[in-house]
Amino acid sequence: MTSRVEIPENLSPITRRGVSRIISEDEFTAMLRRGQPLRLKMGFDPSRPDIHLGHVVGLRKLRQLQDLGHQVILIVGDWTAQIGDPSGRSATRTMLSHAEVLENAESYMRQFFKVVDRDRTQVEWQSQWFGEFTLANVIELTSRFTINQFLHREDFANRYSQNQPIAITEMLYPLMQAYDSVVIESDVEFGGTDQMFNLLVGRELQGMMGQTPQQCFMMPILVGTDGVQKMSKSLGNYVALEEPPQEMYGKLMSLPDNLITSYYEYLTDVPDADIAEMQHSMESETANPMDFKKGLARYITAVFHDADAASAAESHFEKVVQRRDLPDDMPKVSLSDIAELPMNRLLAQTGLASSNAEARRLITQGAVEIIHPNGERISVTPGDAPELRAGDVIRAGRRRFVRLV
Amino acid sequence: MTSRVEIPENLSPITRRGVSRIISEDEFTAMLRRGQPLRLKMGFDPSRPDIHLGHVVGLRKLRQLQDLGHQVILIVGDWTAQIGDPSGRSATRTMLSHAEVLENAESYMRQFFKVVDRDRTQVEWQSQWFGEFTLANVIELTSRFTINQFLHREDFANRYSQNQPIAITEMLYPLMQAYDSVVIESDVEFGGTDQMFNLLVGRELQGMMGQTPQQCFMMPILVGTDGVQKMSKSLGNYVALEEPPQEMYGKLMSLPDNLITSYYEYLTDVPDADIAEMQHSMESETANPMDFKKGLARYITAVFHDADAASAAESHFEKVVQRRDLPDDMPKVSLSDIAELPMNRLLAQTGLASSNAEARRLITQGAVEIIHPNGERISVTPGDAPELRAGDVIRAGRRRFVRLV
Repeated sequence: MTSRVEIPENLSPITRRGVSRIISEDEFTAMLRRGQPLRLKMGFDPSRPDIHLGHVVGLRKLRQLQDLGHQVILIVGDWTAQIGDPSGRSATRTMLSHAEVLENAESYMRQFFKVVDRDRTQVEWQSQWFGEFTLANVIELTSRFTINQFLHREDFANRYSQNQPIAITEMLYPLMQAYDSVVIESDVEFGGTDQMFNLLVGRELQGMMGQTPQQCFMMPILVGTDGVQKMSKSLGNYVALEEPPQEMYGKLMSLPDNLITSYYEYLTDVPDADIAEMQHSMESETANPMDFKKGLARYITAVFHDADAASAAESHFEKVVQRRDLPDDMPKVSLSDIAELPMNRLLAQTGLASSNAEARRLITQGAVEIIHPNGERISVTPGDAPELRAGDVIRAGRRRFVRLV
Repeated sequence: MTSRVEIPENLSPITRRGVSRIISEDEFTAMLRRGQPLRLKMGFDPSRPDIHLGHVVGLRKLRQLQDLGHQVILIVGDWTAQIGDPSGRSATRTMLSHAEVLENAESYMRQFFKVVDRDRTQVEWQSQWFGEFTLANVIELTSRFTINQFLHREDFANRYSQNQPIAITEMLYPLMQAYDSVVIESDVEFGGTDQMFNLLVGRELQGMMGQTPQQCFMMPILVGTDGVQKMSKSLGNYVALEEPPQEMYGKLMSLPDNLITSYYEYLTDVPDADIAEMQHSMESETANPMDFKKGLARYITAVFHDADAASAAESHFEKVVQRRDLPDDMPKVSLSDIAELPMNRLLAQTGLASSNAEARRLITQGAVEIIHPNGERISVTPGDAPELRAGDVIRAGRRRFVRLV
């Protein structure tokens, strides 16, 4: 292939923004400067077909390099998915059938190509080489690595020391992923920071087999909408790519303010200088974080849907969530009077209900909610003692409100 | 197959003599009493083609069961041999080429059928099933067992705790051996006591795959001719089956007296009562152990060669080793006078040589030897300070002797 490859003067938007670690950055930089199209390997596990914004950080990096003229090779892990990646896992996973894997793979790619350019992507299925992989090949591959190396990896070491079962099959996973790198002659492999071990096994195996060892490009972890943990489907703190516009916009609006700039950094093309300016104006309180958050939610919704859908989602949010009319004047209740009361007693105490029994009935009917100053509305259950802050409004039924001070 | 199977009244010659442990003896006894031909599995590793008397203990057990009408299935481990059995091993072994394995297998079988009846033996090569074993098969098999189980096995545990490398491939060995049992539908598998783990994995896998789990029949360890360690080629304390008659006979004659009866028990058909009688007469010193040992050496040499060869070997031994004429009268030297002297100084000191220099010359020419009371002759080198006991004779040149007292 004799494609033209662009070599930008300043490489830091590639090697620094949206990057956790490159092994090694110097080698990778030298490769970029050489001006040859690089083979960028990205494997995916079709047992986890849903892409969320956490994965988009890496996909955007691939797209950025594609736009310079490099080649993406997408590996459909239809074989490793049958085993399940043990990385960062604390228990052996159930294996998928081949049929499930195929269905999931299709779904994954539909999402993947919303970010990555399909025309500059070569898709390879592991079954092309593992379908004919023999026991002799397995013996050859497994003889190059030791149980000791693998069990020193943090997740295996923890499970082993706690005497949790580790299937022998799980040792095959990193080896198979590594073998993929050899087959496709990968120059750079991309993965999350929890993939470092697997990526390094690939690098080592290529070296053993006389290839130039691949660069390992690790993307940062995106914190989920809860503001605390890694974005993950199982934790429920994620924004899926196939989320309808209103939900995508709404989930992004629930982001804590302190994550706004990192989302801009990892998920948009807004220049670093502009992001720094946002950060500064929020810290000095010369701008309202809500405005930047709306800009972010609109941007991302437009990427995965379109500008019209993003505008409509924003209007919906403003009308239904943000501006839902509250009376200008309402009774005020001091936080200290109601500290740590369960909701039913709180309603009786503040006069929102005439009795504990009515309070309980209102709550059970779903007629009670807490409205935060940013417009977010939280529903409650009778025994709850939710965290309340000054500025929160409590609504009971259609017309009864109090504001906490 | 509708062969007739004999059911002996007394099973203890089968289940007790030449047996270390059966898992489980009760089940195995019940199987024998059922009167159906059993499928007796014996695998061998063609990376170790030499059979010595240590292996014959098990081969005789197979033969004994064949003579009752049972069926031996000999598995040629042409695939596992490429990995090498990690059992009892303290380091990863180099893998053999397939060509070496084939050559070794032929040599093994030539020896094996000196004991086991070829007509009642079905030979199966692992390549019949492992030649077409796919990665999917490997995944299916490895998913049934855990690293934890395997690393708790003593040899792996020791290597792991000492941080010695264990190739991932070594985990495959017991699984492949176990899979053999499933393929041939083994009823009983035979192995040394160091094979217990591998045999039990086979038993477990058969159960998982809906077969009746095999019985595990473990043979005792035969102590080598040094009287101390397990008979083994690498320790040099072995009697090979392809040993020429004189050497086979001579090696057996070097056996310490306290091993005579166990060799009779494990390697001959001499009845238990006769062996007990021998033991008793040796303990009460009413018989010379040398006579029993000659009987044993003659018996075994006749089995692996023939009666004439055994007689010839015995005559040779008596003439050359045992009765080589010594003068009736010779100078006596007190052991305490020569304690721990190197040979050259000892010769000078005892008058066997006129000087240190002559002593050294005689030794270098091979003209000096120590003759033990049992006729055994030990050659020496100048710096040696060999262990000497009362009754030993030292010869220097043709006619000079001293007897140590």
